[in-house]
Parts: sequence; C-alpha cells; structure tokens
Amino acid sequence: MNMKRAFYIGRFQPFHLGHHSVITSIAKEVDELIIGIGSAQTSHEVNNPFTAGERVMMIRHALEDIDVHFYALPIDDIQQNPIWVSYVTSRTPPFDTVYANNPLVIELFEETGVMVKQPPMYHRNEYSGTEIRRRMLEGEEWKHLVPNAVADVIEEINGVRRLRRVAGTD
Amino acid sequence: MNMKRAFYIGRFQPFHLGHHSVITSIAKEVDELIIGIGSAQTSHEVNNPFTAGERVMMIRHALEDIDVHFYALPIDDIQQNPIWVSYVTSRTPPFDTVYANNPLVIELFEETGVMVKQPPMYHRNEYSGTEIRRRMLEGEEWKHLVPNAVADVIEEINGVRRLRRVAGTD
Amino acid sequence: MNMKRAFYIGRFQPFHLGHHSVITSIAKEVDELIIGIGSAQTSHEVNNPFTAGERVMMIRHALEDIDVHFYALPIDDIQQNPIWVSYVTSRTPPFDTVYANNPLVIELFEETGVMVKQPPMYHRNEYSGTEIRRRMLEGEEWKHLVPNAVADVIEEINGVRRLRRVAGTD
Amino acid sequence: MNMKRAFYIGRFQPFHLGHHSVITSIAKEVDELIIGIGSAQTSHEVNNPFTAGERVMMIRHALEDIDVHFYALPIDDIQQNPIWVSYVTSRTPPFDTVYANNPLVIELFEETGVMVKQPPMYHRNEYSGTEIRRRMLEGEEWKHLVPNAVADVIEEINGVRRLRRVAGTD
Amino acid sequence: MNMKRAFYIGRFQPFHLGHHSVITSIAKEVDELIIGIGSAQTSHEVNNPFTAGERVMMIRHALEDIDVHFYALPIDDIQQNPIWVSYVTSRTPPFDTVYANNPLVIELFEETGVMVKQPPMYHRNEYSGTEIRRRMLEGEEWKHLVPNAVADVIEEINGVRRLRRVAGTD
Amino acid sequence: MNMKRAFYIGRFQPFHLGHHSVITSIAKEVDELIIGIGSAQTSHEVNNPFTAGERVMMIRHALEDIDVHFYALPIDDIQQNPIWVSYVTSRTPPFDTVYANNPLVIELFEETGVMVKQPPMYHRNEYSGTEIRRRMLEGEEWKHLVPNAVADVIEEINGVRRLRRVAGTD
Repeated sequence: MNMKRAFYIGRFQPFHLGHHSVITSIAKEVDELIIGIGSAQTSHEVNNPFTAGERVMMIRHALEDIDVHFYALPIDDIQQNPIWVSYVTSRTPPFDTVYANNPLVIELFEETGVMVKQPPMYHRNEYSGTEIRRRMLEGEEWKHLVPNAVADVIEEINGVRRLRRVAGTD
Repeated sequence: MNMKRAFYIGRFQPFHLGHHSVITSIAKEVDELIIGIGSAQTSHEVNNPFTAGERVMMIRHALEDIDVHFYALPIDDIQQNPIWVSYVTSRTPPFDTVYANNPLVIELFEETGVMVKQPPMYHRNEYSGTEIRRRMLEGEEWKHLVPNAVADVIEEINGVRRLRRVAGTD
Repeated sequence: MNMKRAFYIGRFQPFHLGHHSVITSIAKEVDELIIGIGSAQTSHEVNNPFTAGERVMMIRHALEDIDVHFYALPIDDIQQNPIWVSYVTSRTPPFDTVYANNPLVIELFEETGVMVKQPPMYHRNEYSGTEIRRRMLEGEEWKHLVPNAVADVIEEINGVRRLRRVAGTD
Repeated sequence: MNMKRAFYIGRFQPFHLGHHSVITSIAKEVDELIIGIGSAQTSHEVNNPFTAGERVMMIRHALEDIDVHFYALPIDDIQQNPIWVSYVTSRTPPFDTVYANNPLVIELFEETGVMVKQPPMYHRNEYSGTEIRRRMLEGEEWKHLVPNAVADVIEEINGVRRLRRVAGTD
Repeated sequence: MNMKRAFYIGRFQPFHLGHHSVITSIAKEVDELIIGIGSAQTSHEVNNPFTAGERVMMIRHALEDIDVHFYALPIDDIQQNPIWVSYVTSRTPPFDTVYANNPLVIELFEETGVMVKQPPMYHRNEYSGTEIRRRMLEGEEWKHLVPNAVADVIEEINGVRRLRRVAGTD
Repeated sequence: MNMKRAFYIGRFQPFHLGHHSVITSIAKEVDELIIGIGSAQTSHEVNNPFTAGERVMMIRHALEDIDVHFYALPIDDIQQNPIWVSYVTSRTPPFDTVYANNPLVIELFEETGVMVKQPPMYHRNEYSGTEIRRRMLEGEEWKHLVPNAVADVIEEINGVRRLRRVAGTD
C-alpha cells in the first residue's frame, strides 16, 4: 500500500467549480487525495451556512466521476496553532504532500517538516464562496458556479432558505 | 437527490470481517450508507490503538468493491448524551434510518424520533476487535479475521508494534 | 402534569421593564414559562457585566408576583449552532412553544420541528440593555428602566462600580 | 436586599423524600436557598438517568409549598477542583453558608473561606437514589420514596422506560 | 517558608526592556515573583507570534542575573472571567500581592480580596510589543528594544521569519 | 544559544528524593532541563493532592542548588494521544532529547522522531509518591523521603490536612 497521498483543505461554503478544477488537477499527481473540510464545527452562519455533513455530501457527489481515491473529512478549528498539524494528521490517512495557498497553513506544515506545494490556480474572482452566498441572498443566479450535484444537495437541505434566514436581523 | 440513507456506527479497532459482513447486508437495503467511526478522538490505547484517520483508511479500502455509496466519518465522544444525536447529524449527510444494537444509541435516536433497525447479525465470538487485539499482542494469527486491505493499512502504519508498545508498563 | 410550557431567551444584562412586559404577556398564554439566560458563561465585560447567578436572582425577584410558574435557567453559548437546540432542551423542562424574534434562534428551533411564535412587542428604544449600561457608565438615571428588585440586586452586588471598572483602559 | 442565603448541592437522580426533608429543615434557617443540581451535564446513564432540566422540574414542583425562596440551578462537573467554587459562585446568587456532607465539597469551600455547616440528617438507607433506581429497574415499588410531583414528572418524561433501556446491553 | 510573593502578568510578545525594567523594580519589594505568561495557548498569529514555551525561555534567560527568585508560568485564556483568578492561583505558587494596570485584572483580583498594586511605570511608547512586531515585519531595527537573551531566543527559533509568514495573505 | 536541552516528565505528587536523584543525574548530560509537571489540571484528589502551582514551587526550591538551568512547567492531560507531543512542545522551550520510562510517552515521542533515553534509575520502592501519600494519610513519617524544601512547601500550604480531608467519605 505504498501510495502517494496529498492533503488539500478548504471551507467549501459551498463546494464550487473552482474547487472542482483544483482538485481535478491535483488528482493527476497523486494516488489518493484527502480533502479537509475546514471550520467543520461551524454552520448556520451567513459566512458558513452549511454543516460539515452537508459539505461532505456535496464533495462526495461532485467528485463521483473523478479518477482518484479521495477522502472528504471534517477538520474542526482548534484554536491552538502549533497543535493543528498533529490534529489534522490524527484525523486523516497518512500523507506526504500538502497543497495550500494559505500562509498560516504553509508555515504550520513546514515547521513540522511536511512538504507544501502551490495548488494549481483557478479564477478566484469568478468562483468564490463569498460571491455565491451573496447571489443566494440576493436571489441572483448561482447554480452555474457549482457542480450540478452541489446544487442538488443545497436543494435537498433547503440551503438557500436557511442562508436567508440566518442572515436576517430581529 | 431523493435517496435512502442509513447510519451505522462502530469503533472499528480495527475494522474486521464481521463489520464487513454487516455492512454488505445493510448496503442492499439503502442507496447510501454513512459509517460513523466512534470514539474518533481516541487512539494509542490498548483498546483503541488506531487513529480516526487510520480507521477511515481501513474502511475506504476494505469496501472498495461494495456496490453502494458510503461515507466513513469520524464521530467524537462528546460526553453529553442528549446532545449526541444532533452532534452526529451535524457531521453527517441527512439520513432516515439507523442500524444499531447498542441500547443507549437506540434510546438516544428513538427519543428524537429517528427509526432504528437491528442490523443483520454476524459471528460476534469469531470476529471481535477485542480478540483481534489480543492476538496481535500475543503474536498469534489475526490477518484472516480482517479484510486484506485492513491488514495492509495496519502494516503501513506499523500498527502491531504500536499496540504492543502502548500495552507496556514502565 | 399535562402543561403548556414555553421557552423565552434573552441575555438580561440587566433584566429590564421591557423584558418584564413581554414575560407578563406570555404568561397569560401558558402554564409554565422557562426563561433562558443566554451567554450565561459571560460576565465582567462592558456588554455583559453580570454573572448568570446574578441574572437569575434579578429575574427571580422581579417576577415574584407574576401569576405563572417560571424557571430562570442559565444557557451557555456553545458555538455549534446545530447542537444548540438539544443543548437547550437538555437543560430545561420539556416545552412545546418558543417565543423568539432572533432569526437564528427561530431557524434552529424550526429545523427541529418546534413551533416558534413572535413574542409581544415592547418599546425597544426605551427599554434596552445597551441604553441602561450606557446610563450606568455615564452616571445618568437608569433605575426607572428596571424593576425595583433588579435595582436592589445591582446595588447588593455593587454592579455599577464593576461595570465602570471593567469599562476602563490601562 | 440583605438576605441570608445558603447553598446545598446534590445530584437528585431523582429528587426524593430524603432531599425534601433536608431542604425543609434548612429552609427554616435561611431567607433563600440555592439548590445546586450536580453533574448537570450527565443523563441517560444507569446512575444518572435524568437531564438537568428534568431534575429542575422535579425540584420546582416538589417544593411548591415550601415557605422559602429557592433556586434550582444546574452545576456541571468541571474536572478542576480548585476552580470549582468560583464556577459555582458565578452561576448562583451570592450566598454565605454552604450545607454539605461531602468531604471534597467541604474542603474546597473552606479553602476559600466559606462557612460550611452539616445539613440535618435523614434516613440514608431508606431514601437513596441508588435504591430508587434499583427498584425502577427491577419493577418494584418506588413512588412512595419520592414526592408525588416527582413521580408525575418521571411519568411525563417516560423516565422508567428510559432507565431500563440505557441499562441494557447489546 | 514565610515569603512575600507577588504576581505580575503580561503577554510578552516578545519580552522587552520595558518588562525588564518593571520586573527589576518589583523584585526589590518581594522575595519571589511569579510572572504569568498570558494568552499562553496563542501563537503563530501576527499579534501573538511566539509560543508559551518560547516566551518562558525568553524570560528565563533575560532575567538570569536578577536578584530574586522568579517563576515564569503559562496562563491560558479561559473565557470565563469570574473563574480566572482561581485558575491563576491553581497554576501558581501562593502569592499575596498582584501588580497590574489592566482594569479587568484589577477588578477580578479585588473582587476576591487580593491586594493589587500599580507596578512601576516604563516608557510605553518606546518599549511596546506592537512596535517591536511592526519593526520585525518591516525589516527595521528592533534588537535594541529587547534584552540580548531575547534576541538570541528569537534567532534560535527563527522567529522573525515566522512572524512574516503568518502575516502574509493568500 | 546552541544548547543541549532535555525534557523529563512526572506527576510529582509530591516531588521526592527519587525524582531529585534522577534529575541530578540527567543534569550532568545537558545544558538545560525542562521538567514537565504532568496531570497539571488535577489536584485535591487522594492520588493528586497538590496543584500545579504548588508542585512548581516544590521543584523550584528543591533544585535551588543544582548546577543546571531548569524549567518546571505544567503540562495538562489533553486526552488525545497523537496531539500530546505537539501540545508539550508548544508549552516548553525547544528540546532534542526526552528522558522517559513510560511506554506511551516513549511511543508518542518516537512516532514524531524525537530521541528518547532511559533516565537513570532510582529506588522506586523506597521513593514513591504512592507510598508518601499513604504515610501522610496514616500519620507515619514521610519527610525523610522528600527534599527539605518540599516538606516546607507542604507545611506552608497545609498539604497533609488537605490530603486527609479529600480522602474522607461522607
């Protein structure tokens, strides 16, 4: 079972076509890919509407046809930076490469000797969780920015309605 | 996305052929199966040698050829029984059926109105995590009690050596 | 013991005549009223000067003559929205109605199937914890905005002095 | 509001006539009595079947006719002994006397300078949570050991059924 | 062992000559000094780059020649103000005086009856953690603002590089 | 600041002559020694009577004349084994050697690539925290088993009285 495994993390609120494009590229370089779902404990917030379980389901279905073994696993915020890497590695299969752009993530992994690579780029202006949530809130089109399977999950869980309600004020 | 999803939970220390047999049976009744990995935060103990990430990897590989969508997701012990069901449901895709034998699990789900079914039986004396760990500790045969993929994972992570070491006393 | 019980939640920093008016109205529609004291773990802050215990005492004395069974019970912030409802219900007597204006509270209860009603309105500009704390800090009149019993509690615990001190800077 | 307030703590699994007798005696010596419900976070266990909220309701109804102001407030186990007293005092109205038999509770309060008194005795063999739970499990008579209101609460929440189920094994 | 012990707290991000000057002054008035390292759990942030252990080492070496027994001990943020004092006292040797300027720290200790003194002043504009971190980020001189031993520690742990990296954005 | 630093951990309930002997031996091999005080959060128990702060004070005074820089630092139990090493290293100065006999401690450090050495032996039957606490409880001689400074600390904090009281039953 000598495999090349990599780790990639995001919040995926929601999982969109930009994520899909990055993962498809990484998939060509590895045998297995571990997708960490960050801030897993957070949901029902304007910037984090979906639960970890809902995000797992989005990813599972959106990547159904991808040609690589992948894992989608919740990673909670644990508030203590120097412990975070060992927290991640205890909740995931062993991996030897990390794909990350976030400077803190890079620093934390590199301090423990793990190799970090730049993931392939995608159009960050076009595909963005912030933009998708804004469109949901304002009733604009958003489904073309996510895989079909993600739109189906959001419909099943009545996600747009939830987002609008938690965005309200009393 | 109108699917029949079910939830099944175990500690899987390690995942063995008894688990495999139960899951193969449940798989025939559902579209998707969520496998909760209980006591996820626990490892490096005589009764809980393997991390959540290692157990995820065991299950992923052992069920490679199964004919159902499945999710293998860590579930931490949270020490407050009446909150546990909502903790589980926030970390998993939505499901409508639970397969469980454990009386507390049954009671907690039934109090919240979720239907609980008895999972199919397997030979509990033959296939048992306790027995497998005992065999590992005493240097007896154990690989015939687990799927081949699980034996491979345990070898990759040097699992038997770890179990023996944490079983030591100073 | 077939009773109509309702749940109403606030931070009560401090309990004021607006709260008193709402609760008096709700009391006419129920047999028992559970008053949740939110952010119970927070105190000694400019926006949250009083402890859970002090707020319990304010409510107990302010509602002495009300014609309904009531409970005043601390509810901590638990930082995980989908778990919050079961946290609340495990710390309170069973209830079938919630009175709430806050959109997140409404959404969380409705997702679990609990009925939520709009509580009766009161003059939010006149009676407001923010305004009362501002008056305390600036040495203006504030006692006419709270029940007499609340003013007594605040005096017993030397509450205005505490508020002024934690509002200081070094 | 210069009152004599005292604190008394128990687990109340369930609240029984022994507790009732002690509290009735203490009530004669104080203006207000704070009843701490210990191990509040624990329920659905053989030795701790009832939630904090259910125990609050038992006490509220069982003491309906008592001639003293009382508070029934959940107190969680916090696992750090030297912090426990300040945890308790932050969740309760101010008090100057503690009634306790438990040596650790006595030591912790006395180290912080709070006066501890022995509560009046009751027949500990006759009235005991352990004995009542045993009778519930074995189908023997138990209602004569608790106030009527407590028996009503346990019936409303279907408490005996829950106790029997969590006592099961798979 | 009848000693005069005092407590002084700071975040020490990093320990600088202003801290050194205050502590040298306090040292003349006491037999032993306990230095609490606040927000101990925090590191790898722009405003909190150094771990508790690194800060302990800075203080230990910077005060090598001081003529008083001192202790440098991590104190975590615990988020519940009324419990904080007992948390501190359980993690430190007994003390009877606190030196503090922070209004919340003063209020919390005084509410529990501990005497609080104003520590001697130092040039807060000149010696400031914020200013030192700014200089590190911008590549300006900063070593003259800290004891030599602190500069050595920061070099050993490659601290400036870490600060710059966690200050980045992706 | 290129130093040889080592880590040694114990519970030190209380610190005794066996600990003193081991540390004196290790001190000859290193420039600085970090003494971790395990189960730091625990006190006021029969097997763990003393707080972290009290144990820090014992060690500080007992090692006053030792010819090495040492640090005595509290280490809490964190209940998640694979995270423990990074928790320790974030709370301590950097070190390259661990002295340990405990199999779990050895395994956890070795899995992260840290070198573990056997500490020098001492008479474990003669010098033992368990035996010292037993003697304290039964009123037998114990002071000859600990450094004089430790006996002084225990007297200052009235430690034997506390141990006897928490050992009581109600």
